[in-house]
Amino acid sequence: MDESQGQKTRENRRELGITASREKDFSEWYSQVILKSELADYTAVSGCIVFRPYSYTIWEIIQKHLDSRLKKAGVKNAYFPLFIPESLLAKEKQHVQGFNPEVAWVTHAGETKLGERLAIRPTSETIMYDSYAKWIRSYNDLPLRINQWNNSVRWEFKHPVPFLRTREFLWQEGHSVFATQNEAEKEVLQMLGLYAEVYEKLLAVPVVKGRKTGREKFAGAEYSTSIETFLPIGKAIQCATSHFLGQNFSRTFEITYLDKSGKSLHPWQNSWGISTRSIGIAIIMHGDNKGLVLPPKVAPIQIVVVPIVFEKNKDLVIKKAGEIAKKLSKFRVHLDDRDNYTPGWKFNEWELKGVPLRIEIGPKDMEKKQVVVVRRDTGEKMSVPFESVGKKIASLLDDIQENLYRRAKDRMEKSTVEAKSWQEFLKNADSRRWVKALHCGDPKCEEEIQEKTQGVKANCIPFDQPKKTRDRCVHCNKPAKYEVLFAKSY
Amino acid sequence: MDESQGQKTRENRRELGITASREKDFSEWYSQVILKSELADYTAVSGCIVFRPYSYTIWEIIQKHLDSRLKKAGVKNAYFPLFIPESLLAKEKQHVQGFNPEVAWVTHAGETKLGERLAIRPTSETIMYDSYAKWIRSYNDLPLRINQWNNSVRWEFKHPVPFLRTREFLWQEGHSVFATQNEAEKEVLQMLGLYAEVYEKLLAVPVVKGRKTGREKFAGAEYSTSIETFLPIGKAIQCATSHFLGQNFSRTFEITYLDKSGKSLHPWQNSWGISTRSIGIAIIMHGDNKGLVLPPKVAPIQIVVVPIVFEKNKDLVIKKAGEIAKKLSKFRVHLDDRDNYTPGWKFNEWELKGVPLRIEIGPKDMEKKQVVVVRRDTGEKMSVPFESVGKKIASLLDDIQENLYRRAKDRMEKSTVEAKSWQEFLKNADSRRWVKALHCGDPKCEEEIQEKTQGVKANCIPFDQPKKTRDRCVHCNKPAKYEVLFAKSY
Repeated sequence: MDESQGQKTRENRRELGITASREKDFSEWYSQVILKSELADYTAVSGCIVFRPYSYTIWEIIQKHLDSRLKKAGVKNAYFPLFIPESLLAKEKQHVQGFNPEVAWVTHAGETKLGERLAIRPTSETIMYDSYAKWIRSYNDLPLRINQWNNSVRWEFKHPVPFLRTREFLWQEGHSVFATQNEAEKEVLQMLGLYAEVYEKLLAVPVVKGRKTGREKFAGAEYSTSIETFLPIGKAIQCATSHFLGQNFSRTFEITYLDKSGKSLHPWQNSWGISTRSIGIAIIMHGDNKGLVLPPKVAPIQIVVVPIVFEKNKDLVIKKAGEIAKKLSKFRVHLDDRDNYTPGWKFNEWELKGVPLRIEIGPKDMEKKQVVVVRRDTGEKMSVPFESVGKKIASLLDDIQENLYRRAKDRMEKSTVEAKSWQEFLKNADSRRWVKALHCGDPKCEEEIQEKTQGVKANCIPFDQPKKTRDRCVHCNKPAKYEVLFAKSY
Repeated sequence: MDESQGQKTRENRRELGITASREKDFSEWYSQVILKSELADYTAVSGCIVFRPYSYTIWEIIQKHLDSRLKKAGVKNAYFPLFIPESLLAKEKQHVQGFNPEVAWVTHAGETKLGERLAIRPTSETIMYDSYAKWIRSYNDLPLRINQWNNSVRWEFKHPVPFLRTREFLWQEGHSVFATQNEAEKEVLQMLGLYAEVYEKLLAVPVVKGRKTGREKFAGAEYSTSIETFLPIGKAIQCATSHFLGQNFSRTFEITYLDKSGKSLHPWQNSWGISTRSIGIAIIMHGDNKGLVLPPKVAPIQIVVVPIVFEKNKDLVIKKAGEIAKKLSKFRVHLDDRDNYTPGWKFNEWELKGVPLRIEIGPKDMEKKQVVVVRRDTGEKMSVPFESVGKKIASLLDDIQENLYRRAKDRMEKSTVEAKSWQEFLKNADSRRWVKALHCGDPKCEEEIQEKTQGVKANCIPFDQPKKTRDRCVHCNKPAKYEVLFAKSY
C-alpha cells in the first residue's frame, strides 16, 4: 500500500466524508474508505495492516459460515506450525520455485543463529504433508481432510494494497488426501462451489468459475481451479482457488497407503483456500463516493437507529428508538444515542461505514406512529408504521442483498466482451474490459500477449465454454484450444 | 519436548495402549498419551507441535465459550500484524529485556536483507499500542478494549513440552485502555474471573487466584495477577494471566486522551491472555494409566456408542445402536460401527482417547431392552433401560464433570501444605508439595530460596490471605509481608 498516501489520509482521518472519487482517483478513494470507516489501518510494518474490529467482524461472519459448511462436508480443523524448515520447503521443486522469492526467513532466535533457516509459511503443503506421510498407513486412514484457519506470509515486492495484497493475510487452507483420483477431483469442485457461495451469497459478488492456464496454476499443482471476478475499476481479480495436486506431493513426500489387497499406492491430493482478500473485493465492488456499501449478510451492523432529538419529547423519542432497536434484536442492530453529535453528522458517519439500513425517528414520526427508513444502496427513503417495522426490515435487507448482487453482476457482464480479432482484443483490453477470446493454450503465446499489452493476463479458462471452439487463437492464429478471460489483474 | 522420546513413541504409535506409568515415568507417559490419542504430534520444527483435530476441537470449544463471554463484556476482536519491528519492540525497556532472549527474528525476505529485523510477536503490546496512540484522541474513544486470537512465538531454550511449553502457541491476548485506574483494575479481576471459569467449569481444573511477586510479574507491567494450579506430578503451573500495566506503556507510546475539561492525560492499560497450555494442564490433571480422561464439557466426543455384534441379530443391533446415537444427537456423540475391529479393541481405543461415556449394546441387551453404560472416570458399569438413556446420560455427564473437578481439587488441597519453618519448607518442597509460607517480599530473598532448592519459585501471592500476617519470613526471618505459594513449576 502507498504508505505516504496512508500518512496523508491518516492526518485528516478525523474529517468525516470521502473526498476522493472512486472513478478518478481509485487509490486515494480506497485508502480513505478503509481508514475513515475504521475497517483497517496501516502499521509500522510495511505491507501489513491492522484488521480493526469492523473488518475483523466481517471475517468472523465469513469464517462462521464457511467453517460450518466445511465441518458438514466432513473436513476437520487442526493447526500446524507457522515455521517450515528450508529443507522441507525445498522438497517439491516447482513449489519452492514458486514461493521462494517471497518467503520471509527466520534466521535467529534470541542471540542464537539457527542451524537451518525457517520459512514463515507462505502456504502449508510441505509441513503438513510431512506429517501426513507419518499418519497415513492404509485405506482406513483415507480420506484425510484437514483445514486450518491461520495467518500466512508472502513478502510480495509489488505495490501492496490493504486486504487485496498484504504481506501477511488471514485465510483457511484445506488439505485433503484421497485413495482415488475421482474422489479428489470431485472435492476440488465441491470446495470451489463453497467459495462461490461465500462470494455470491454473502458478499454479493458475482464470480466466474474456471481453470487456470498452465502458466498461472499453483506451484506444484496438477491443475488449479479458481473463481474470478471483474472489479468496477477495470481489473480482474482471483477470488479463491481449489487445486488438484494429483500425486505430485504424495510422491515427493513419500505418502503411501495400503489398499484392501495390500498393495502400496500413492494417494491423490488437493489443497484449497480463501483469504481476507475477499473483504477488499467486496469493498471495491459495492462502495461509492460516500464510502462503504456493505451487503447485509456480512455487515457487522445491519441497521442503525438514530433518534432525532429536539427538546420537545426528547425522552419519549429516545425511549421509542430504544424499543425499536430492541424489537429488531434478531438482526445486527445498533442504537446511536450519542448526544454529542447531530443527526446529520451521524447520517454521514453510518453512510460512510456502509450500514445497509438507517432508521430515523423524530417527534413528527412519533405523532404519525412511524419511522423513516433509508436504504444505503439506493438512498431511497420511506415511512414505515411502527407495527410493521420488523417485517419490512427483513424484506428490505433481502432486497438490498439481492440488488447489490444484481447490480454487480450486470456491471460485470457489461464489462465482459468477446474479441474475435487481435485488434479487437487490444482495443478492449485497453479500455479496461474483461476480454473473452479463443486461445491456443501455448504458454509462450500467453507470455507474448502479456508483454504486448503491458500486463494483460489469462485470468481463467471458464468452465462455461462455447460449444464451438474449433476456431483460431486470437493472438497467434494457431488452432484454438479453449476460450479464456483476459485482463490486467490484481 | 524430548524429540528422541517422540521418535521412539512414534515408532510404536500403532501399538494401542499406554505402556508407561504417569507416576513412574511421567515424560514417557505424557508423550505416549498425546501421540496415541492423536491429540498432537511432533514436527520437523523442534519445539513446535501439530494440534491435531482431536486437540484443536478442544481449543475451539474453549474459544467459543470465552469468545462469547468477552463479546458480552464489550471486548471486540481484531487482528494485528505477526511482525514487530525491532525498534518498536525495544521502546519499553523492561518489556524488551523480558522478551528479547526468546524472540524469533526475521532478517530476510526472499533474497533481500531487510533494513530492520522483525520480531515474530512474543506478545503484541508494542505493535498494538503504536496503533492505539493514533486512534485515541479523547475520552469519547475510551474504553478501548480489543482482543485477538492468534499464534505467538517464544523461542524458549528450556526443554519444550507439548502444549505446556511449545515455541509456537495459540492464545488470545486482550489489550484494554481506560480513562481511570479504577476501571482498569476492575477489568483485571473481571478477566481473571473469566479465565478461572474456563479452568474450573470447562476443564474441571481447580485454580488459585493471586498476584505474582515483583520478580515474577510480566515484563513491563505494574503488577500481574494469575491463576495457578498444582499438577498431580508435583509441579505448579501458571494457567493464565491478567496484567495491570498502569501508565507504563501509555507513557512510552505517548498514548494520551483529552478529558472533558480538555486536559491531556495518559490512560491506564491492561493486557490478559490464556493459551493452548490449558489443554496440556487438563491432560495431566485428569489422565490415568489407560490414557486421557476428558471432562465432558470439552470432550470432542462425549459419548461413544459401540454395537457388540455377533452373527445373530447383527442388523438389529447395529440399527438400534444407530437409533440410540441419533437420540443423543444433542450431545457430541459418535457411533463406532467399524466392522474391522473387535469391541474389545474399540473399548481400549476410546478409553485411551478419554471419551467420558461408552454405551455398549449387544444381543442380550436387545432382549432386555437396555444398554450398558460405562464411565471413563470411575470405570463404573451400569445397565440403563432404552427409554431412560437420554436423561441418564445427561446426568452422568454432569456427574463426571463434577467428579473430575472434585477429585482434582481434593488432590490439590492435600498437596498444599503450610511451612512454618525453613526446615519444614525444605522437607515439603523436596517431597513435591505446594508449600504455603510467609515471605518478606524481598526479590533477593526469593532468589536465594530458588538457588537453595534447585528451582523452587514463588508461584503467587494468593488473594486469599491469612488474617494474621505479622509473622516472620520463612526464609530470612525478616518481617513477613504476605503468604506465598512456592513450588517447582513449569
